[in-house]
Amino acid sequence: MERIEKIVLVGAGNVATQLAQGFHEHGRKVVQVYSRTDSSARSLAETLQCDYTTDLSCIYPGANLYLFSVADQALADLVKQFPLTNVAVAHTSGSLPLSLLTKPGLRAGVFYPLQTFSKKRKPDFSAIPFFLESNDPDLLASLHELAGTLSNDVRHIDSAQREIIHIAAVFACNFTNHLFSIADELLESNHISFDILHPLIRETIEKALASKPATVQTGPAVRNDRQIIEKHINALSTLPGYQIIYNFISQSITEKNKIKS
Amino acid sequence: MERIEKIVLVGAGNVATQLAQGFHEHGRKVVQVYSRTDSSARSLAETLQCDYTTDLSCIYPGANLYLFSVADQALADLVKQFPLTNVAVAHTSGSLPLSLLTKPGLRAGVFYPLQTFSKKRKPDFSAIPFFLESNDPDLLASLHELAGTLSNDVRHIDSAQREIIHIAAVFACNFTNHLFSIADELLESNHISFDILHPLIRETIEKALASKPATVQTGPAVRNDRQIIEKHINALSTLPGYQIIYNFISQSITEKNKIKS
Repeated sequence: MERIEKIVLVGAGNVATQLAQGFHEHGRKVVQVYSRTDSSARSLAETLQCDYTTDLSCIYPGANLYLFSVADQALADLVKQFPLTNVAVAHTSGSLPLSLLTKPGLRAGVFYPLQTFSKKRKPDFSAIPFFLESNDPDLLASLHELAGTLSNDVRHIDSAQREIIHIAAVFACNFTNHLFSIADELLESNHISFDILHPLIRETIEKALASKPATVQTGPAVRNDRQIIEKHINALSTLPGYQIIYNFISQSITEKNKIKS
Repeated sequence: MERIEKIVLVGAGNVATQLAQGFHEHGRKVVQVYSRTDSSARSLAETLQCDYTTDLSCIYPGANLYLFSVADQALADLVKQFPLTNVAVAHTSGSLPLSLLTKPGLRAGVFYPLQTFSKKRKPDFSAIPFFLESNDPDLLASLHELAGTLSNDVRHIDSAQREIIHIAAVFACNFTNHLFSIADELLESNHISFDILHPLIRETIEKALASKPATVQTGPAVRNDRQIIEKHINALSTLPGYQIIYNFISQSITEKNKIKS
């Protein structure tokens, strides 16, 4: 197994930034950052004190891993234009299949950390699950060793399972955040601070994570309290998008509970 | 202002149970518990070492407050049958108007703690917002004094504002929990533990509460990544209820972001 000591990061977004800093702190060297955007590439390279480029043809050839951490839409084109062969590549996407990297001369893998990253918030990598995939057993072992420097939770899964995990994460996190932003908007337009919901949100999370979420469901829909549901739906009449969400989630809660009972 | 020393609790559910224990710990006496269900009434009364009844006509007449904490659907009938006059009553509902308690001879108020209660989890009342309402200034002052023994966050709002707060809470908490249970179901049917999402869920909450949720939205919908969205919707084809939720929340995220940008 080859230890991944030198990494070229293709991408300079939130995921790339936090991974790069994590590698750095654990003694692995990011030797170069590529980004289409000069300012992004330069900014990350300055933090890491490494080289950067906005030109794919200038990518440094001697790295142990070329880690693609870019928007899903951008990956296929980048891979097509990627000039090197006989190197190991991996992407960090929850949704894209391993096969997107399959190209003659490339050893391909997936290196997917299940977390929401921001440029400014330093994550605690040790608890973040890393999901790895590769058809090349040597590369898989190398990726495992690299992920293991950051995290205590490294797993091997295939592309189909990774897609399910990504969908589950969209529901549990991206959509949850949107529900918070709907709540915030409703309160704000009535001059009430979103802060009043903080204790309730924290308790909701603690309850859901301490048991099975379906077993601690509360609210009008699980009681199928039609009177309150109709009242709320009427109160949302000027916000049809939110009315539809209210309606379908309530239906789904009621149905799930019917099946259970 | 009359200090509320003696309370009769009408109801013995999660909210009644936790409030009763909170009152008790702060030196206010729950003198009697009423519930339709003998076992519920007896169980709570045993914890509080007080009297209980399942017969409205046996309700003790000398209390400073009759606190109705029952299912929303049950409240109107209970109030109609309530035999006492010249007493102070209040309900703990987020959704029902003050006017539901308006009846000749009754001084009426609302005493709404914004939290999700379980019988077994002891809440930290000090951070829980209490929303109070009454047309009777003396009763409002008494309710404020009582709420103030439990919480540092006591506010006066009207029924219309309370309804908005309740709708916001349904989105941010009841619906959030359902999204978690969808994620759990998707993972479980693929033999993956819901635990893998815990770090991501915790980070999502920390980010949302540290700023305005709309400003930290991530995921395929905020990038309007149609390819991933379509892939996910296809993957949910055997779960049409979840497919609809995925579709409408994604639309809502994309629209909100278009307006913002």
